[in-house]
Amino acid sequence: MSHPFDEINRLVQAALSHAGASPDQAHATALALVTAEASGLPSHGLSRVSMYVSHLKAGRVVGDAVPVIQNQRSSAVLIDAGNGFAFPACRMAIEEAISRARQHGIAIAAVTNSHHFGMAAYHLDPVADAGMVGIACGNSPAAMPPAGGKRAIFGTNPIAAIFPRTGHPPVSVDLSLSEVARGKLMVAADKGESIPLGWALDQDGNPTTDPKKGLEGSMLAIGGTKGAMLAMVVELLVTTLTGAHFGAEADTFFKPQGNQPQLGQAFIVIDPKALGGDAVYSERIEALVAAMLSDEGVRLPGQRRLQLLAAAKQTGLKVPQPMLDTIRSLC
Amino acid sequence: MSHPFDEINRLVQAALSHAGASPDQAHATALALVTAEASGLPSHGLSRVSMYVSHLKAGRVVGDAVPVIQNQRSSAVLIDAGNGFAFPACRMAIEEAISRARQHGIAIAAVTNSHHFGMAAYHLDPVADAGMVGIACGNSPAAMPPAGGKRAIFGTNPIAAIFPRTGHPPVSVDLSLSEVARGKLMVAADKGESIPLGWALDQDGNPTTDPKKGLEGSMLAIGGTKGAMLAMVVELLVTTLTGAHFGAEADTFFKPQGNQPQLGQAFIVIDPKALGGDAVYSERIEALVAAMLSDEGVRLPGQRRLQLLAAAKQTGLKVPQPMLDTIRSLC
Repeated sequence: MSHPFDEINRLVQAALSHAGASPDQAHATALALVTAEASGLPSHGLSRVSMYVSHLKAGRVVGDAVPVIQNQRSSAVLIDAGNGFAFPACRMAIEEAISRARQHGIAIAAVTNSHHFGMAAYHLDPVADAGMVGIACGNSPAAMPPAGGKRAIFGTNPIAAIFPRTGHPPVSVDLSLSEVARGKLMVAADKGESIPLGWALDQDGNPTTDPKKGLEGSMLAIGGTKGAMLAMVVELLVTTLTGAHFGAEADTFFKPQGNQPQLGQAFIVIDPKALGGDAVYSERIEALVAAMLSDEGVRLPGQRRLQLLAAAKQTGLKVPQPMLDTIRSLC
Repeated sequence: MSHPFDEINRLVQAALSHAGASPDQAHATALALVTAEASGLPSHGLSRVSMYVSHLKAGRVVGDAVPVIQNQRSSAVLIDAGNGFAFPACRMAIEEAISRARQHGIAIAAVTNSHHFGMAAYHLDPVADAGMVGIACGNSPAAMPPAGGKRAIFGTNPIAAIFPRTGHPPVSVDLSLSEVARGKLMVAADKGESIPLGWALDQDGNPTTDPKKGLEGSMLAIGGTKGAMLAMVVELLVTTLTGAHFGAEADTFFKPQGNQPQLGQAFIVIDPKALGGDAVYSERIEALVAAMLSDEGVRLPGQRRLQLLAAAKQTGLKVPQPMLDTIRSLC
């Protein structure tokens, strides 16, 4: 059975409010989670509501935090999320980055003292709506070792990017830097199957084909050394420029108890008008998209997410009854 | 036998000048190639001199090009390399990006109508010297297909980043997005060995373990779909914002004949002072470096390159005699 988007949104807001989130924290956070669910990314959707509520109750998230600008120069701004949910601070960061990029050509808005920022691509949709190019990245509790290392220091550190198109949905990329998600190890462990070398290390830092040992250990980055270096770049960007914790300083999200993660995010917005201009931009993106789609196996990144979201806003979301019962029980 | 850095630099300048490069084109290009050679990256060093000379002679590079600013807004600038070598335009881009980032917090300098930009990390060293964070990317002739595709559209699209440290060399990352370099396929082909699945596709777009078929086909990106999406992001950044060719529109560098590649590059420079400030920056990078180095297998990216370069500037470069003879024959 489908439920209207707004009905599920109000339900999640109520659960977060009941656990102590202010109206703005609950509003911004519920909208992000329900949007992820409606976009076909349940791992970053309603399945997170219980976790977020547990973090509010344990004081890992400050329910009445108000994001504030901590420092700024014309095209750069640092926002302190105040250890609230990431979403109100990220929304503010994106608004700041768009208006500053319009004025100056490019802008960076970085966020500190933040929490899980969910589906990274979500934050960039308003950037495409404004006709601009956006890049987002953030860190997360330690999951991957540096190149050559045995202990997890970096998060899986998602990178997202968005490129608007005229008359079409934007091209939208969102990926974490681990070779696979932990969920793939969980599935393999449940089925008693082995995993390929290159996915994970055991808790002693040795390569493993045993998914259970991998789950106790750490995940490996795409391309081995190269992905680990990209994860380091993200980790450095969102911590050195902001003062945020690095992955190994933030406790796992998957337990109610732990510290305020104090993670970091960074958003870069670029106005094509300040460089090659809109006509060049449109010609180039359409030429590249046409070249990609002339190869029959190729799908344009982000299209499915945006189609699912548009459909769900019209016809509602299918939410499993146990999930609905769980969220209702939190209200 | 070692040769002084300046002697080799003058020799390469002479070879480029003899083929028609202006003094500035020859100076900037020779310095970049000799620096790459001295940094332990011969694939981007003196081995390129013959190729660059052949491109000058074939008109693929305009020897007397002068880079000019094509468009600008306060923190963004587009530079037209005029189909000269990439290095004079990239040097100008970095100078512009540093001074604009100092004023505005962040800046982007993009380059169009450009050529091979060599070792990507090279361009960022002045950014670290200025106490700022830098990111560089560029495209290259088609080498990798999009996710799901059979035909190469994107280059291997290097990404570099630099983070300065006080009292230590900067942390410096430089990687291409292909799972392995084509050189690894050449070595396997010479030895008659097979290659793992996931390195390359044959010319029909099918996965192959035959390095010879891979060399006729295309390379695969790190992490499969994820790396291909990152390559697309780089390709879009350096073409849509600049008007540059995408990889499939640029002829291979490895033949003298072909078009002016008209490739694109982008440099982003960020001033930590505009965000968390220098004290936060230093504390955070040193904390992360210490955490990384406490794991005994971990080496900090970029240190070897900078040590080799410093040593070569003091004690000279070892250049194989045939290489030296080849370059001398071009003067």
